[in-house]
Order: sequence, then structure tokens, then C-alpha cells
Amino acid sequence: MRQAKNGPTPGESALDRGAGCRQFGVQVLRGQAQVAFLSSVPAGLLFAVALFAAGWEYGLYAIAGTALGTATSRLLGADRERVSTGLEGFNACLTALCFAVFLGAGHLSTALLAAAGCVVVTVVTAAVVNLLGVWNLPSLTLPYCLLASAMTTAAPGFERIWHHGDGLAALTSAATGPTSLGFSDLWHGFFTGFAQIFFMPQWYVGALVLAALLVASRRAAAVAGVGSLVGILSAWALGAPAAQIADGTMGYNAILVMLALCGVFLEAGPRTLGYAVVGAFTATAATSAMAAVFAPSGGHMFTWPFVLTTFAFLAAARSFPELRTSAPSPAAPEPMSAGALSAQPPAPQAP
Amino acid sequence: MRQAKNGPTPGESALDRGAGCRQFGVQVLRGQAQVAFLSSVPAGLLFAVALFAAGWEYGLYAIAGTALGTATSRLLGADRERVSTGLEGFNACLTALCFAVFLGAGHLSTALLAAAGCVVVTVVTAAVVNLLGVWNLPSLTLPYCLLASAMTTAAPGFERIWHHGDGLAALTSAATGPTSLGFSDLWHGFFTGFAQIFFMPQWYVGALVLAALLVASRRAAAVAGVGSLVGILSAWALGAPAAQIADGTMGYNAILVMLALCGVFLEAGPRTLGYAVVGAFTATAATSAMAAVFAPSGGHMFTWPFVLTTFAFLAAARSFPELRTSAPSPAAPEPMSAGALSAQPPAPQAP
Amino acid sequence: MRQAKNGPTPGESALDRGAGCRQFGVQVLRGQAQVAFLSSVPAGLLFAVALFAAGWEYGLYAIAGTALGTATSRLLGADRERVSTGLEGFNACLTALCFAVFLGAGHLSTALLAAAGCVVVTVVTAAVVNLLGVWNLPSLTLPYCLLASAMTTAAPGFERIWHHGDGLAALTSAATGPTSLGFSDLWHGFFTGFAQIFFMPQWYVGALVLAALLVASRRAAAVAGVGSLVGILSAWALGAPAAQIADGTMGYNAILVMLALCGVFLEAGPRTLGYAVVGAFTATAATSAMAAVFAPSGGHMFTWPFVLTTFAFLAAARSFPELRTSAPSPAAPEPMSAGALSAQPPAPQAP
Repeated sequence: MRQAKNGPTPGESALDRGAGCRQFGVQVLRGQAQVAFLSSVPAGLLFAVALFAAGWEYGLYAIAGTALGTATSRLLGADRERVSTGLEGFNACLTALCFAVFLGAGHLSTALLAAAGCVVVTVVTAAVVNLLGVWNLPSLTLPYCLLASAMTTAAPGFERIWHHGDGLAALTSAATGPTSLGFSDLWHGFFTGFAQIFFMPQWYVGALVLAALLVASRRAAAVAGVGSLVGILSAWALGAPAAQIADGTMGYNAILVMLALCGVFLEAGPRTLGYAVVGAFTATAATSAMAAVFAPSGGHMFTWPFVLTTFAFLAAARSFPELRTSAPSPAAPEPMSAGALSAQPPAPQAP
Repeated sequence: MRQAKNGPTPGESALDRGAGCRQFGVQVLRGQAQVAFLSSVPAGLLFAVALFAAGWEYGLYAIAGTALGTATSRLLGADRERVSTGLEGFNACLTALCFAVFLGAGHLSTALLAAAGCVVVTVVTAAVVNLLGVWNLPSLTLPYCLLASAMTTAAPGFERIWHHGDGLAALTSAATGPTSLGFSDLWHGFFTGFAQIFFMPQWYVGALVLAALLVASRRAAAVAGVGSLVGILSAWALGAPAAQIADGTMGYNAILVMLALCGVFLEAGPRTLGYAVVGAFTATAATSAMAAVFAPSGGHMFTWPFVLTTFAFLAAARSFPELRTSAPSPAAPEPMSAGALSAQPPAPQAP
Repeated sequence: MRQAKNGPTPGESALDRGAGCRQFGVQVLRGQAQVAFLSSVPAGLLFAVALFAAGWEYGLYAIAGTALGTATSRLLGADRERVSTGLEGFNACLTALCFAVFLGAGHLSTALLAAAGCVVVTVVTAAVVNLLGVWNLPSLTLPYCLLASAMTTAAPGFERIWHHGDGLAALTSAATGPTSLGFSDLWHGFFTGFAQIFFMPQWYVGALVLAALLVASRRAAAVAGVGSLVGILSAWALGAPAAQIADGTMGYNAILVMLALCGVFLEAGPRTLGYAVVGAFTATAATSAMAAVFAPSGGHMFTWPFVLTTFAFLAAARSFPELRTSAPSPAAPEPMSAGALSAQPPAPQAP
């Protein structure tokens, strides 16, 4: 039975091989879905559709990246339950996408480097899981943020992989431009926030992402919708330029924070909803800080505001008994209640 | 009896309500005093007087910030002893002050944002306490440093809160200007170092802060005075421009490090005094490093040199038995011996 | 017998004093050798010869720095086994060298500041060992990286210690210049990679460093040679300018990562060799990222790519049973198997 852990061995029958392939496919689609804390196969499929709608090369990079990350973690003998619920795939999915967007999807150098990135991010994921285990915190998209930040700051130093001329390092200056929101900005911003989770700027990609959430869990979709609105309202109230709100850059971190703090890592309820709204506001304000911090080295904020805000609010929640109506099991360092959101509940995670 | 934890409940008599208000007032004044590791009510009062002397709006921001932070932590059900000794108030005090100084105290947007900052810094404080608990390190002013750094780098990206035109992001250049210290620089620097703990540049504000220390504990005042001198001498020896020494920017981190390492977290004595002097020198040198690190993103060093130096010297102290004449109890992750410095000894902290 | 811990006491005979001096000399030479994970006296001697070959002042700074760091840790009562195996000396060695190179070895201010740096780095080493102990990770050269980064960013702010005119803060721009490697670039790069571990750019210094590795352990020398090649090949494949490869800046982190992941902290074998090659590639790519991150504040990458990559790959290794053919003892937070590489096996480390 041990062989089953790392996929079919040469001696197995064609039937077993077929089952192994199907199992791997399920793991890859769940890996896609875990970008939004889901381990639902239909949601993973819809996410893939959304990315193919944005551009076939992005769909391909995402699927291939998730597959490569999942395969690497199996090869290295990673925890079986983590692989099975897709937790070993989503950082590779985002890493591959980010390499495609930043370095140009059409270059052979980008494809090779993205493949290397997916292998390395699997190692970094294991490292982050072990390091954060001390605090019983989930790894979220931190592995991807580390890899993506390293890549964007490193790339201009290498001539074979950087095809955009000058580097991106620059000092930020104060925001300018109109801040009043029209209806078009508003609804564009609402949907593009969902698309920006995958780095895409099209509103219809965001609509498909929201549809995937709806398919997997109505509550998750509702919470995410509130997150998108909180992001837009916070950015408007603080005075972000309307163009930044319309293109979704002020919304995706708020969406992810809302999902994490109201339903995934803290039980959904009126108190955690309020707590998550404060978190989503904080992440939106932090967006501008992260942009300023990464700009001088040519980096990008990615999902750093979400990751850092969620770490703070999760670590803090332990001191606030008012939020702990039913605390998540301390043995689960990763989206435990993700199962609750998914159409196909995964096996419980090994401690 | 449980209700007492979160203040008076509707059913209580007017007498109880009065007691609750007085208790809250004591917590707020102790919160002010904890900026300098004291939990003394008279010291908190004198700190408030010092800030009102600098400008009534600063006094108001500080008091209101401390009150809001204390109230938020009570609302969220934070540890009762932490609230009672003022440990839930001082980061909010500094956060509100910092927002007032950097964004302009007179704007409505500043007041609203400072209020939001005081709520968020309470959450961040709980997070930092839980995260640093792994190493049994105190949270110091780290929560405030995180919030303040995020705010200063984020603010220029939002047009409704930033009223100063251009952003502050810039590369540092080598220091210039005379380095020889006159007597006027010297005594100004000695007092302004105390004022800069609260972000203020006036020597008489610093004199009032020193007076508050003296009222609470003669030893603490003496140690802090040595710290101010070490900061001035270190900066002069390294060749900092005299203007920077005179305005106190080279001294406040040294004062805080001396207090932390000689009397608050390590027992005062000849060995820890020497150790703290090395720490104060290190923090003074680190001041210039932090300024260079934060400049490109438009940030400010705040009390980062103090926080990082104190973490290093406290974590290291465990390996040096020569310093452990009488180690502080491992159950106290926050200024334990602060009680020794305070006029009104707080109840012992819950583990 | 307790006195022996901190060297000879006044009452001891001349014979004991001689033995104490010889013991201290051995500790200093082992401290030099620990820069490359060795605790071999002959290797330490050869490293010193290499540095004297680069310039007598560098040899002197390195020896004096190691001696001062070792003496400080003994004075503070640090763990005897750590002192004895040289683990308390190598960060001071690198710190002194780095101060000499960056601030100019000939200035009195540099010598005084380097001495202060060696004292402070000993404290920082103790702190880092205690903080990383939570994850059972070795401290590597992290203490030195912290001190060196603080110094390079701080120095231009102080007129008495900075003699180079303008500061170094600058934004990075995209790489330019030929990327095709000639034979001269190749063999220069191979050897200068070893020299750059000690900040030196001469190929013959690197050859002496490699010779020292060969004297202490043939396997370590072979692994390090592979590391230098992986660094060169990775940099060439990514498109680093040939000049950067020839001067060794793309190689030294790869060498150190290979040593750490294949023989020192993970048992050498075909699987860890492959794992270490991926690590060496990652560190080489990270070199460019670190350069971009530190440039705006005038910092330098030092051995940050090695430190961060090794932390990630070591922390991750625990999740990959395929790599744990024979895991190092969890009780040893520092180079355990360094003994295996050294001519004179040190006593086993205290837990």
C-alpha cells in the first residue's frame, strides 16, 4: 500500500494507472481551487476556465504550474493529505502565472524559469509550513509571495530572462488623478478585484472567479463579495485614484482577507464578520504601503498585504475570547474549514 | 464578578459606574506612562502635561488614542492584567501621536484615521505578543513601529489623507555639516532626546518627560539620563552632524534601550549597566542604518533601532550567565519589574 | 575546574598559562575555519595565509577580529563547546574583514569600529542562536549579515567613519554587457568564487581557500567545487554579465549552500546532492534579487542569499522523508557533522 503514496509504480495494471491519473487530476484541480481556500474540483475547473478566458497561455501556465508543484511535492514525499487537498499546488499555480505575466508568457526562457520556480516554491512551501508551525499559522500564499518578489527583483539583473529593457526600480511619488467613483468604476472594480487574485485585469475573468466561489459555497461567495465592496469603499474613503479602484488592485487583498478571517480560519459569524471587515480595511491601506516598500527594488506587492494582515489578525484572535465562539482545531495548520466550503469534502488533515 | 472584566454593565449602580470610570482613567494614564516602561499614574499625568506643553492637539491625540486603544482591548476581551497595567494603551498613544505629527493634527481625515489606527494597533499588539511569546520576548513598541511605518509609507498613495504635496520617498546621501558639539547642542540634545520619545522636538517637553521619570523612580531617571549621554557621545564619536544631536534624533533610542536593559527586563547592576551601554551605542549606530533603510519608501525610523537592538540584547542575555544575577521570571512576557519603577505597583501579570 | 571555562585565572602557573594561550590560539584558528563549516586548525591557518596573500591588513583584521569575538564570548560566559569548536569566532572574523574592506583598512576609525563590531556581533550571535533555536536552525552567517548590512547602510550617515565622499544608495538598473563566457572568465570565476567568501577578488586567494578545504576534507572540497560550477552555470544560463561571473560575485553563495546542504547539515548522498544543486541555483538567482533589495539603502548582499536559501532548504527538508536517509541529531543547532570534515574532531556539542 505504501506505493500508492507516490502514484502508480511500474508494476501496476493499466486500471490502477488510470485511477492514479484521475487522482492526480483531482489534486491539480483542487490545487487551483485552493488559491481561494477551496478544495472543490468544480471550482478549480471554473478557475481554469477563467484563466483560459483571459488568455490560453495563462490557463496553460496555471495548470502546468499546479501539476508540476503537485508532482514535485509527491516526488519529495510530502504529506499525503496536503497533496490530496490541493495545498501543495496553489502556490505553484500562482508562481507560474506570475512568471508568465511579468516575464512574458511567449518566451522559452520564461517557461523554463517558471518550471524551476514551481519546483523551488514547493520547497519554500514546505519550509514556510514548518517555520509557521511554531505559531500554528497557515502558510497562505507566503511561499508564492517570496518567490514572486525574488523573481521580479532579480529578473532585470539577468539578460537572458529579462526582455523589457529597463528595470522597474523606482521611487514612489504621491498619488494623483481623480478620486470620484463613477458607476462604471464601481462595478468594474467589484469584478476585477476577483480577477486580480490571479493577476488578471479583465472584469469577466473576475465574474468567472466569483461564479466558481458561488458553485463551491454560497457563503464564501457572499463573504468574498463583501470583501470586494470593503476594499472599494476603503480605497475610496482614503482617497485612492479611481483608476486604481477600477482595475481591481485595491480589492483583491480585501477579498482574500475576508475569506480567511470569516469562514476559513475563524468561524463565520457576526463578530468575525466585523473583525474581518477591519482586517479588509487594514489590508487595503497596507496595499499602498507595500507598493511603496517594494517599488525601489523593482518588486511588486502581490498578495503581501493579505498575507501580513491575515497573520496579524489570526495571531491576535487567540487573545480575544469574544471571537472564539468555536476555535479551529489547533492541530490544523492549513485551511481546516476549507472542507466546509468545498463540494467534495477532503479527508481530514494529518496533524 | 466576570462583568468587571469589561467595565460596568447596564445594571450597575451609579457608584459602580463612577468606580468604573476612575478605573478606566487609571488604565489610560498608566498606558501613557508605559511608553517609558512605567505604570505610574503620576508619571502618566506628567507625560500628558508634557504633550499639552508641546501643543494642546498633541496632548489630546495622545490621551484619546490611549483611551481608544484601552477601550478596544477591553471590548475584545484582552487579558485583564495587561489592560490594568497600561500595557494595552501605550502603542495606541504613540500611534495617535505619530498620525497627528505626520498627517497634520488639524485635519478631520487625520483624526478619523488615527482612531482607526488605534483600533488596528490593538489587534497588532495582541498578534505581536502572541508571536513573540515563542521567544518569551516583550512586545515593546513593535506594534506601534509596524503601524507607523505602514502609515507613513502608505499615506502619499491616498489623496484624502495626504495634504503635503509630494511624497517623502528619497535616497539618503552622505551626512554633511559641522560635527563639533557646542555646550548649547549638548544640553539641548540631552533633553530633546527625552522629548523625541514622543516625537516632540522641544527641550522643555523633554525636561518634563525626565521629571516624570524622576517622580516614578529615581533609578529609572538616572539610567535614562546615562542613556541620553551615551546616545550623544556615541553619535559625536561616530561623527553625526551636530544638528542631529541637538534635535534629539540620536538620543531617544539610546534612552529606551538603557531603560529596557538596565532595570526593566534585566536586573539593574554594574554588569547590566555595561551591557546596556553597549546596547545604547548599538542603537545609536543603528539609527543611521534604519534611516537609510526606510528613506527609499518614504518611511521613518520611529523606535525601530530601540526595538531591534533590545530584542537582540535580551535574546542574547540568556546565553550569558554573567548577566543573569537574577533573571526575570520567564512567565512575564512584558515589563515585569516595571512595577518596581512605579508609584502604584500593579497586580502581578497573569502568565 | 570551573575556571578553565573562561581561560586561566591569575593564580595559575606559567605552564597553565601557556596551555591557555595555545588553547585560545586553537579556538581562533578554528573560528577562521568555521567560515567554511570546518573546525580544522590547518584549514584555519591556510585561510589566514590566503587573507595575508590578499593584503597583510586583511589577514590582520581577520585574525584580530576572530580573537576579539572569541574573547568576548568567553568573557560573557558563552557555551564552552561553541567557543572550543570556533563557532563563536567566524562571524567576528567576517565582520572585521567587511569593515576593513568597506570603510578602508588604514583608518584608525575603521579599526576602532571593527573592534566594536566584533563585540556586538558576539551578542548578536547569541541572540540569533537563541531565536533560531525555536526551529532548530543553525545561525550560519546571519549575525555577520545583520551587522555588516547595518554598518554599510549606517556608515555614510557618520562623518568620522565614512571617508568615501558620497553614499552608496542607488536604484538598480537592468544588467548590460556581454554574457558569453570565455575560458579566462570561467577559471577566474571558479576560483574567485572561493575568494569572495572572504570578500576578496583575487583568484589565487580563492585557490588557497580551496586548498584549505582540500586539506580538511576531500569530500568538502569536491562538493564546494561543484558549488562553484553550479553558480557559474546558473548565472550564465540566466544571463548574468560575464564580468560578474569572472569576479566571483555569482559563485560564493552557491559554494556555501552546497557545503551546507550536502555534507554539513544534511548527510552527503546522491539525493542531497541533487537537492543542494537546486539550492545553489536558487541562491545564485537570489543574488540578483538581494542586490536590488539592498541597493536603495546603500547596503550589500554579503552572504544573505546563502543564509536565506539554506534556511528555506533546511526547514523544508524535514517534510521530505526521501532526503532523510540519516537526519542530523535534532539536539545540534550548529554544524554537527562539521566534525566529520575536520582534521581534529571537536568534542560533541552540548545540547
